[in-house]
Amino acid sequence: MANPILIEATRGPLVESWHRGSIAIAAPSGALALQLGDVERPVYPRSAIKALQALPLVETGAADHFGFGSSEIALACGSHAGTEQHAGLAAAILVRAGLSIDDLHCGAHPPLGAKAAAALIAEGCAPTQLHNNCSGKHAGMLATAVHMHEPTAGYWEVGHPVQQRIQRALSDISGVALGPDVQGIDGCSVPNWAMPLSVLARTFARLATGEGMSPERRQALARILASCWEHPELVAGRGRADTVVMRALPRQVFMKTGAEGVYCGAFPELGLGFAIKIDDGTKRAAAGTAMALIERLYPAARGLMPHGPIKTWWGVQVGAIRSSQTLKDALASLKV
Amino acid sequence: MANPILIEATRGPLVESWHRGSIAIAAPSGALALQLGDVERPVYPRSAIKALQALPLVETGAADHFGFGSSEIALACGSHAGTEQHAGLAAAILVRAGLSIDDLHCGAHPPLGAKAAAALIAEGCAPTQLHNNCSGKHAGMLATAVHMHEPTAGYWEVGHPVQQRIQRALSDISGVALGPDVQGIDGCSVPNWAMPLSVLARTFARLATGEGMSPERRQALARILASCWEHPELVAGRGRADTVVMRALPRQVFMKTGAEGVYCGAFPELGLGFAIKIDDGTKRAAAGTAMALIERLYPAARGLMPHGPIKTWWGVQVGAIRSSQTLKDALASLKV
Repeated sequence: MANPILIEATRGPLVESWHRGSIAIAAPSGALALQLGDVERPVYPRSAIKALQALPLVETGAADHFGFGSSEIALACGSHAGTEQHAGLAAAILVRAGLSIDDLHCGAHPPLGAKAAAALIAEGCAPTQLHNNCSGKHAGMLATAVHMHEPTAGYWEVGHPVQQRIQRALSDISGVALGPDVQGIDGCSVPNWAMPLSVLARTFARLATGEGMSPERRQALARILASCWEHPELVAGRGRADTVVMRALPRQVFMKTGAEGVYCGAFPELGLGFAIKIDDGTKRAAAGTAMALIERLYPAARGLMPHGPIKTWWGVQVGAIRSSQTLKDALASLKV
Repeated sequence: MANPILIEATRGPLVESWHRGSIAIAAPSGALALQLGDVERPVYPRSAIKALQALPLVETGAADHFGFGSSEIALACGSHAGTEQHAGLAAAILVRAGLSIDDLHCGAHPPLGAKAAAALIAEGCAPTQLHNNCSGKHAGMLATAVHMHEPTAGYWEVGHPVQQRIQRALSDISGVALGPDVQGIDGCSVPNWAMPLSVLARTFARLATGEGMSPERRQALARILASCWEHPELVAGRGRADTVVMRALPRQVFMKTGAEGVYCGAFPELGLGFAIKIDDGTKRAAAGTAMALIERLYPAARGLMPHGPIKTWWGVQVGAIRSSQTLKDALASLKV
């Protein structure tokens, strides 16, 4: 059966396009506070899982060993905009671990931030691996390998201890086995494991509450989230939802976008995690759904992100991106 | 009922995202050679209809009056890449009509072509209305107004003779009434009328064959298509599907992309028109579906467009954009 329509794009009197998808909201126990659409199909969380991919950086003691503070940890959790600040901090992590840009294997792409991309072009510079939105995550993985006296070559491969440690942590926290049947390769070359949205939602609830975790892991998770809330501009970038909302609502909302229409996050006060996947992989629908959920739970988030109007190049509104009635009804029925 | 899945995006062992949509392929009579999904819901053709929006430019005699050749006509039908060549030709149309860039009302946006956009930034120049992918269409509309001694101000409004002429032509050729119930405003500020895919498909079949048209209209339509086939680089730009395929298969394939997942076109030799709409509005799915159709009918088109592989930033293939079994079966069953 097709997933329900979550987001509609209107133009004039008609709905022009629409986006189907699924949402799960869960407690650490796995009890679902909301499920809409298929929440049992495995979904690659992509970059939405970066906070957990950063866990070994803290748990192995690598972060403390190299003197990484909240900035470095936040960057390791981020899909950054590729500004000078972001690229420079990724470089600093590598230097402190005794490595260089050539040790990275994320590949190069133009900065996600339009201004950062334009600045590079204006300077006549080609983007490097440091500008890849994942360079902080990769630098953190490399620093962990150095700290653990593991080879840095091949740190991106599924059999390397760096990735095995991440796989184990994800499996432990989520409570599901993660084998080759659900393993793909992310755009930055490292493994990514697909999980049902119901599992991702409870995983993020556990990340945010520490429920069921050892005191050490609970502390590491809390340190990671605190780092993101302290430096939301390192998790994404100026004007982007993850940065804007986490700056406005630290400790209340943790959120992280992922490629192909994924959004994951948690509401620590409410003891809930959430996971969203848009069938077609579009960002506008994932962000629209995530913001609708966050605004439902935290009215203070309303108006933070200028989503909604579709405008001509003259700035005249001619349509709108809006929540479907199905999504509105589901969010209205949410008991928290 | 949900439209069928036409395109899938895989990663590792799983289908990560998918795109639902509809296709109609029709003869000038309206007889459907193929229908998949809902082909009766009104769909805004957006830029896919530009060849017909350019019809009054030819039919009023404006093109001949100002000495516009096949280049200017092709540009008026195009969603160009905003290169110097494109912007310069749009400017030349305006100058010959005694107008300037300030008469345009398409608004400014960075060139669609990445190289053209980077070149502007490197030169420290802001994009102008000439770089808008629709500037050729707008320059043609303005030239028509001048030739017809109509005010140029407000040429973009639905009540202006320029738009009324287009509305009438679209209605005449398609054979359907086009009222405010199906009228939206395109991103470039001019009206756009939604039609069922079944109607769009037969409209493009009539455009390509001239069937049922007066000799004058038939000649004008033929001149417009010949212009696009003569200058496919003005209809889109280097490396883009409309340019690449029409350069390789002139007189056999006419095709034009539109925003929000639309593709329309025709196969004159086969006497067929086609119209595609992807529910979610994504370009990758519309282009994938259009190429699957074109490659089915013209094997010479295979390999022209590098669609398919999903790669890491290191260039390693980790997934694929592919036709769904439903789409493959439907195209295989097509009798031509």
